Amino acid sequence: MRMRKKAWAEPFLKENADFVIEKPEIWAGHWREKLACQRLRIEIGSGKGDYFTKMAAMNPDEGWIGIEKEHNVAAVAAKKALAQPHEHMALIAQDADQLSSWFAKGELDVIHLNFSDPWPKSGYAKRRLSHARFLKQYEALLNPQGQVIMKTDNPKLFEFSLTEFSRENWQLREVSVDFRRQPHPEDAITEYEQKFMDLGQPIYRAVWQKKAI
Amino acid sequence: MRMRKKAWAEPFLKENADFVIEKPEIWAGHWREKLACQRLRIEIGSGKGDYFTKMAAMNPDEGWIGIEKEHNVAAVAAKKALAQPHEHMALIAQDADQLSSWFAKGELDVIHLNFSDPWPKSGYAKRRLSHARFLKQYEALLNPQGQVIMKTDNPKLFEFSLTEFSRENWQLREVSVDFRRQPHPEDAITEYEQKFMDLGQPIYRAVWQKKAI
Ligand SMILES: C[S@@+](CC[C@H](N)C(=O)[O-])C[C@H]1O[C@@H](n2cnc3c(N)ncnc32)[C@H](O)[C@@H]1O
Ligand SMILES: C[S@@+](CC[C@H](N)C(=O)[O-])C[C@H]1O[C@@H](n2cnc3c(N)ncnc32)[C@H](O)[C@@H]1O
Repeated sequence: MRMRKKAWAEPFLKENADFVIEKPEIWAGHWREKLACQRLRIEIGSGKGDYFTKMAAMNPDEGWIGIEKEHNVAAVAAKKALAQPHEHMALIAQDADQLSSWFAKGELDVIHLNFSDPWPKSGYAKRRLSHARFLKQYEALLNPQGQVIMKTDNPKLFEFSLTEFSRENWQLREVSVDFRRQPHPEDAITEYEQKFMDLGQPIYRAVWQKKAI
Repeated sequence: MRMRKKAWAEPFLKENADFVIEKPEIWAGHWREKLACQRLRIEIGSGKGDYFTKMAAMNPDEGWIGIEKEHNVAAVAAKKALAQPHEHMALIAQDADQLSSWFAKGELDVIHLNFSDPWPKSGYAKRRLSHARFLKQYEALLNPQGQVIMKTDNPKLFEFSLTEFSRENWQLREVSVDFRRQPHPEDAITEYEQKFMDLGQPIYRAVWQKKAI
């Protein structure tokens, strides 16, 4: 998500260093204590933060961490979160490439991937957040019952993800080729999701869990 | 597929007993010799036969067997097949419930499921051709590289199938949530498929292969 550069973004992120965590690695293994929660969820590529702020408000007993590398967008998300009760929330305004150093093995319950960049050219397949390179990290960071939940409008990314997870031995627990054909009050709508729903396009969704071997 | 009863159907199927196999179990393990082919494919629920007759014409070196329990529809398929070179083809006008007795273990290369009846009520889930009950039979009848290929217009059946195959440890090799967005000259269009394409609905397709454990 690219936006015009916001002059206030960088100082705002710095000022709120208790919420926008600059050194997430020091919390590895201690996020549950920090956020005073039993269940811990992260959203990678959280954009302007609609999803994780709404979900955190709906689930105040869970810990919610947004991860967004673009500072102009992350700042909007931070503003949104700081305007609501956010003791159980945090934001990491960095590239998820470093994910493995930020959390301990088995620390996460759910990883959300919402409308991730599709990187359509095969030369960039490695950058897709559902590439095997990332799946291996997710596997290590999730607890044994942990899940990856993806929503997307992009058929190619969805198809790639379905075959990639299958190849990496994850079990497909739920899948929908038109998630919004039924109401889902338990699941918040993201910025991109709203856009594609307004256009009448189907929303694809899948839930994977690592297979016990 | 229900049709008005055709008076000619039953006698026609009987007259062509060399093509419409009455006791398929006697060919178990010998279909390749009978149809003089290396690769053997079956279509379960072949309806009026558009798919397997066209695919057989396009692939004369492969063996193709249609399976259709409704005699009124099977007779239409038989007529179609008998009007073209069909030495490498056969029809079984019976319920696929008996599948396991008709073929030897590992005898099949591909099982096609095209626009299978969705049986939407959960009480009838066992009748779906992608229910675990059937998948276990497919696994036994397919050779180790063998595949199940499904096409459907029905989102619920498609979603059910994706999770069911995953649970039964099959690998998803290919998947499309809109198969006809690109031309596929190598794959014939079925009667139902044409109907749903004319309505502008997406065609879902998946290819599964059993995982070596
Ligand atoms: C298409 S936007 C979707 C935003 C939001 N999830 C939604 O559904 O509306 C994808 C976002 O993911 C972010 N992103 C992509 N790759 C990332 C990575 N490796 N680490 C952190 N953020 C990433 C992009 O900067 C962008 O803001
Ligand atoms: C919806 S029609 C689709 C026909 C065709 N495959 C197409 O794509 O146009 C499904 C067909 O499967 C047949 N069928 C369903 N269950 C079957 C079974 N257990 N054994 C054999 N045929 C079956 C039905 O009789 C019906 O003709």
